[in-house]
Amino acid sequence: MGIRKNAVLYSCAIALAAGASWLAAEDNEDTLLARAQQTFKPLPADAGTPQRPLTPERVALGRALFFETRVSSDGKGSCGGCHNPYFYGTDALPRSVGVGGKVIPRNAPTVFNTALQLVQHYGGNRADVEEQAVKALVSPLAYGNADYAAAEARLRALPGYRAMFEKAFPGETEPVTAKNWGKAVGAYERTLLTPAAFDRYLKGDKAALGAQAKQGLDKFMSYGCSGCHNGVTVGGQMFQKFGLTQDYWELTGSKEIDIFKGRDKGKFQDTKNDADAFIFKVQQLRNVAVTPPYFHDGSVAELGDAVRIMGKLQLGRDLTEIDVSDLIAFLQSLTGEVPAQFAATPSLPAAAYKY
Amino acid sequence: MGIRKNAVLYSCAIALAAGASWLAAEDNEDTLLARAQQTFKPLPADAGTPQRPLTPERVALGRALFFETRVSSDGKGSCGGCHNPYFYGTDALPRSVGVGGKVIPRNAPTVFNTALQLVQHYGGNRADVEEQAVKALVSPLAYGNADYAAAEARLRALPGYRAMFEKAFPGETEPVTAKNWGKAVGAYERTLLTPAAFDRYLKGDKAALGAQAKQGLDKFMSYGCSGCHNGVTVGGQMFQKFGLTQDYWELTGSKEIDIFKGRDKGKFQDTKNDADAFIFKVQQLRNVAVTPPYFHDGSVAELGDAVRIMGKLQLGRDLTEIDVSDLIAFLQSLTGEVPAQFAATPSLPAAAYKY
Repeated sequence: MGIRKNAVLYSCAIALAAGASWLAAEDNEDTLLARAQQTFKPLPADAGTPQRPLTPERVALGRALFFETRVSSDGKGSCGGCHNPYFYGTDALPRSVGVGGKVIPRNAPTVFNTALQLVQHYGGNRADVEEQAVKALVSPLAYGNADYAAAEARLRALPGYRAMFEKAFPGETEPVTAKNWGKAVGAYERTLLTPAAFDRYLKGDKAALGAQAKQGLDKFMSYGCSGCHNGVTVGGQMFQKFGLTQDYWELTGSKEIDIFKGRDKGKFQDTKNDADAFIFKVQQLRNVAVTPPYFHDGSVAELGDAVRIMGKLQLGRDLTEIDVSDLIAFLQSLTGEVPAQFAATPSLPAAAYKY
Repeated sequence: MGIRKNAVLYSCAIALAAGASWLAAEDNEDTLLARAQQTFKPLPADAGTPQRPLTPERVALGRALFFETRVSSDGKGSCGGCHNPYFYGTDALPRSVGVGGKVIPRNAPTVFNTALQLVQHYGGNRADVEEQAVKALVSPLAYGNADYAAAEARLRALPGYRAMFEKAFPGETEPVTAKNWGKAVGAYERTLLTPAAFDRYLKGDKAALGAQAKQGLDKFMSYGCSGCHNGVTVGGQMFQKFGLTQDYWELTGSKEIDIFKGRDKGKFQDTKNDADAFIFKVQQLRNVAVTPPYFHDGSVAELGDAVRIMGKLQLGRDLTEIDVSDLIAFLQSLTGEVPAQFAATPSLPAAAYKY
């Protein structure tokens, strides 16, 4: 198999590089980069689109609303409560905790770069970050509002926001709406991209990755990981059955989930279509090294275990310790910086909360 | 009464200043500043003491621990959950929400400048911020740990912290302890001071306060507010009965509190000594304009109402609208900036959470 052979050649080239064949090493370096460039894409500056414009007013409003707790039913929940700055846009929990301490049945993925994924949620039942954000408002677990009107009433009770909504959505008779809340939060999220060493590499800086990360990249592509984890977010662009070679919980140790009356069947939970059983959106892998625990239910704590399990469950491959170590080195090259507009949280309009 | 007469003269001086008596206005300006300097003190650079040294290592550790959620029983609670950057170190709620959605019986005061208060908590039952922090760890409402050992077990399960504790507490055999958690969090809190226009004024910059703020300052001292709200934190340095002229709930609308089996009686709730009934620590007023709602139970949403109620309850005075407006102008001069090391939240050690 050409790819496998190439990998072996590449490994040899690395081993010999100190002594001899610089030309061969250079050739292999070029080949590796070319393969990577066919499979992945560097991050754009932001995830705005003509339909989702990132005006400064909309982003500033969305940034405030992202951290705003007073719109939730107990005055405590917010986007930032599960996607927080100290854990790279996650809550570092296996499964998130919503209003009133209610456990959300799935893990909170990082908000970073998520706007660039094909769809949102593990089952893919949210078209984009705007839909995800606005529907969270009426989730009984996340924000706990009875309906959008209840959420809007809370928003309108905070007088400091009206002027911000008017600027972000000029010309609208009543701009303080749940729908605009979603658009604003979405606009902010579309700025939360985290360029990493791997982006510099994809743009041609071959020194951006160390030797082991390159080994890992080679294996990531050769072993088949990149068959699903590809594109700009290294995943997040397609669906796949989780557990191709055996039931996932045999390796992840996942428990049955009350709300699902058994195992989490992914997309099936929304569609109830048997063909969707155990179909999940392929997870994006940007920042994976700093966002444990892993999988849709956070059932695996360590990155090495997650890599081993994926090799076995999806590829039927028993990865060696060297494989795991190389793959982790590559995955670490996907770690970016926490965006400044996220690490520095905003001061929100001081205003009365209804007692 | 000399003070009252002085205030009248001062008002006249302001009114006439544009036309004539600059000298009189200048004299009154000097007098006002001198009175203020006798009553209040500008903020120091930090609240460290020889016993509570603010080493960089201890402050950095404390900053991480302040926002660390994985030490609470549901993986969601933290100091920063109730004292957060977007609401000037408060949660903007009447009463805070702890682990599992449990309502804490009192309002979360701002963490800013709190280390400079005489004692901590509304009833004063915490000697300092270190004691407050460490006892929160085993509060069934705040962090929900069964005991310090449970909290320490959670801390030690996060491997990223050990090196930070070792640096912050060198030479200790086992530095990862609840006690050191309190010392580190306390050290960080001792850096969270917010110098404001009023501090510049106290240091001699008479232009730091506008004319109305000076009117308000004059009234604040002349009417007797500063009899209790004085010192470096403009309050927080003594105890006082809340409701000197009538029961506080007649004006605040405070509800009975389940956990207290009736009205909140302040210090009495801890001591059960009748002499302590309705005795509360005088609240500090720094950042009061941006930290609604007001009072120990957040029962009053608007600053103007809080000022009016205090005039009546504590001084038996019906403040005019002009009084209220002037006093608010002064109180606004106590608003500082959110400290940079608080607005920018840290990235915390990525590590496994026990599933």
